[in-house]
Amino acid sequence: MKKHDNSRREFLRLAALGTAALGLGTTGKLFAGKPEGYAEIRPSGNKSVMDLACEPLETVRIAVIGLGMRGEDAVRRLLQIEGVKINAVCDLVPAFVQEANNKITKAGHKPAAEYTGETDWMKVCERDDIDLVYNCTPWYLHTPIAIHAMKHGKHAALEVPAAMTMEECWQLVDTAEATQRHCMMLENCCYDFFELATLNMARNDVFGEILHAEGAYIHDLRSLKFLKQNEGGYYNFWRLEYSKKHNGNLYPTHGLGPIAQIMGINRSDRFDYLTSMSTKQAGLSLYAEDKFGAGSPEALAEYKLGDMNTTLIRTVNGRTLMVQHDTTSPRPYDRLHLISGTKGMARKWPRPAIALEPNAHQFLKPEAYDQLIAQYEHPLVKQIGEKAKKVGGHGGMDFIMDYRLIYCLRNGLPLDQDVYDAAAWSCIVPLSEQSVNQRSGSVDIPDFTRGAWKTARPWPVVTVE
Amino acid sequence: MKKHDNSRREFLRLAALGTAALGLGTTGKLFAGKPEGYAEIRPSGNKSVMDLACEPLETVRIAVIGLGMRGEDAVRRLLQIEGVKINAVCDLVPAFVQEANNKITKAGHKPAAEYTGETDWMKVCERDDIDLVYNCTPWYLHTPIAIHAMKHGKHAALEVPAAMTMEECWQLVDTAEATQRHCMMLENCCYDFFELATLNMARNDVFGEILHAEGAYIHDLRSLKFLKQNEGGYYNFWRLEYSKKHNGNLYPTHGLGPIAQIMGINRSDRFDYLTSMSTKQAGLSLYAEDKFGAGSPEALAEYKLGDMNTTLIRTVNGRTLMVQHDTTSPRPYDRLHLISGTKGMARKWPRPAIALEPNAHQFLKPEAYDQLIAQYEHPLVKQIGEKAKKVGGHGGMDFIMDYRLIYCLRNGLPLDQDVYDAAAWSCIVPLSEQSVNQRSGSVDIPDFTRGAWKTARPWPVVTVE
Repeated sequence: MKKHDNSRREFLRLAALGTAALGLGTTGKLFAGKPEGYAEIRPSGNKSVMDLACEPLETVRIAVIGLGMRGEDAVRRLLQIEGVKINAVCDLVPAFVQEANNKITKAGHKPAAEYTGETDWMKVCERDDIDLVYNCTPWYLHTPIAIHAMKHGKHAALEVPAAMTMEECWQLVDTAEATQRHCMMLENCCYDFFELATLNMARNDVFGEILHAEGAYIHDLRSLKFLKQNEGGYYNFWRLEYSKKHNGNLYPTHGLGPIAQIMGINRSDRFDYLTSMSTKQAGLSLYAEDKFGAGSPEALAEYKLGDMNTTLIRTVNGRTLMVQHDTTSPRPYDRLHLISGTKGMARKWPRPAIALEPNAHQFLKPEAYDQLIAQYEHPLVKQIGEKAKKVGGHGGMDFIMDYRLIYCLRNGLPLDQDVYDAAAWSCIVPLSEQSVNQRSGSVDIPDFTRGAWKTARPWPVVTVE
Repeated sequence: MKKHDNSRREFLRLAALGTAALGLGTTGKLFAGKPEGYAEIRPSGNKSVMDLACEPLETVRIAVIGLGMRGEDAVRRLLQIEGVKINAVCDLVPAFVQEANNKITKAGHKPAAEYTGETDWMKVCERDDIDLVYNCTPWYLHTPIAIHAMKHGKHAALEVPAAMTMEECWQLVDTAEATQRHCMMLENCCYDFFELATLNMARNDVFGEILHAEGAYIHDLRSLKFLKQNEGGYYNFWRLEYSKKHNGNLYPTHGLGPIAQIMGINRSDRFDYLTSMSTKQAGLSLYAEDKFGAGSPEALAEYKLGDMNTTLIRTVNGRTLMVQHDTTSPRPYDRLHLISGTKGMARKWPRPAIALEPNAHQFLKPEAYDQLIAQYEHPLVKQIGEKAKKVGGHGGMDFIMDYRLIYCLRNGLPLDQDVYDAAAWSCIVPLSEQSVNQRSGSVDIPDFTRGAWKTARPWPVVTVE
């Protein structure tokens, strides 16, 4: 089917439907509603990786690429999990690489191979003594490294967001399906204690049918974005650069991941379309004026990222998710994590609270709340929660995530998050921007699972025993 | 300019802009983004009523039409305000009319004229001893009665929403401009204590530039909607009928009003466009099955109203408002009332909290919070807050609203809410539904002020002394 024929057929179909998605986008493309790189046909030879289980691994041999804010702590946590061997470490900063290897040798292991070159991540992926590439690089390297790893037979674990464009989303999916390798986005918030408790409650029908959920990443990062790397900031101010060039939800997955799992997205339901809206940008400019002076390059620069972005997602089964992103406004940290169903609701911010029928007009008092939370404590928390709190990493959720990852790889089990999750939760990045730039016009979200969502089973309540 | 020429010119303009608002709506109209009844040209002879001040009234002679849930308590409150004379009372239920007159005579006044006929509201509006028609009827009579009142020289106060269609919104505006009469929607939530405090803080730049705000009407009304009138429910189940026929935000103003005032909507800024999204409907059917049986007409009826509706509004100056409506889900009452600016934030639900620079990452502790609230206590609360709490009506806000209404009319001052507020806050009803029915496509919001918003001053901090 020629691309032109497909476009024309699509035009006529949309015209007949009378959908508001038909429009003239700012890019000049005829189909404002269709995301770039829209593709439904699976390349021949590829196979679905829904519920993919691979050969068990006695020892998981890991390469950690990116040893900055996230990677350094990942090394620390992984070294506290049995069955792990870190064979390669890679970062542009030699001191970070040395520090990582100090941790490794202090833990009694053979030192890992060290890499510091700009493109050394490719060589790391091509080594023959690696099972898993654990990728904590800046956003623009998340997909490229995961692709290269899978193409060379490795499983890929990658920081969030997994992809920054629709093209990258499809690359991840198609490469995983071609190579039959795991591709897991490291969405740690799915393993936080209240999030796991509400998942357990949801699987036990405590909230009834869940119709609406809310998640966010509200975290004032103004100072962090402007900090030099040697003062704790980002390499080459890469996060600030994204704020200059993009306007939308740049970082949706911390709030979206847990609620998408609870709602069975890609597993009994899937995203249908979204609309997104940003405020103008104000806070970054004000901060830069205040810190560097009104005439400074920082203050005079153009920042496109609207301070608050709100995105609404509708699913095929008629449920909605509200996702917000605000890394500018002076306000307390907030991921929302609100679940609303036909039998009650739960929310985590500003403080954990649950309300259930037949008295759902009041939140549970502390005693009743504690009782319910104890009753539905997730097995993972029961089994490794104490150790997780000791090892830490955002209070423990990072360790639970790593522990489950290694456990699943060693036992040949499907991972908790797959490439379809990575693509679906990450595609909000480019699609929110597309909508924002078109007066919040409706944007279709493609089916990355190519139909498998209809029969897949939502992520169950898992254990590590 | 012929309507056809205008349409064609509009088509070309939109095509050139490449706006996603151009589309084929479900109604078959070419401009999905343009609301029905879209009109910008002011009928000749009409004059703006921005900041309208009318002749002072020594005594405000009132007719109260609708003596049910809201009207009965309005009579009780009005009788406690000086300078008020209720000359007519009207309701379909004779017992309600008698009860109202009992209150009137008990307060030492001459009895009001009594009306109980289906169309008697017209006669009431045509009386020659009425200055103000106070309208607490079902939604479908809000605009018709207000129109008739103004056309007969009376000021109109009307319950919320003021209008249910775009046509009604424009009727209110054009009639007010033609008759130069006040038309005030009775949005009581604007006078609640925390809302007035945050308004006062906003006017004193406590939050900096306010970029984003959130409001809602989250109130589980399942049982109330199904109650017979003689058990405390709605006349002819009128509210349930709206839930059967419409899907959108049917009742936006309680959450939207206070934040729209704070943000100076129609007074230095105005609504530009919106997008709206609903979940499917589930809770009303489940409730009906549970209460009346699975085979009952109530359970088998079709209800279009999605349980949770979320609407995003963008203003011309680049700010956003998030407004929700949920009268079905089992969860605690919530109007959100969240304000987020460049210097801090405030929120009322689930519990009042404020966070300000330079420590905006934490909410204020109780002592600091109490101090701030005391420092910015609104003059209205200082002056009549205690009496309001005694008289009551939703804790006092209803009384403050009525008190200010009478005060302004007696003193020939502009009212706190005008017909442009009524139209702007109410047009969310039809426009949210339009967007919902088009996959949340973008919908333009017209300028009801016809340009006056650019120079009007935001509602200031008012007093009654």
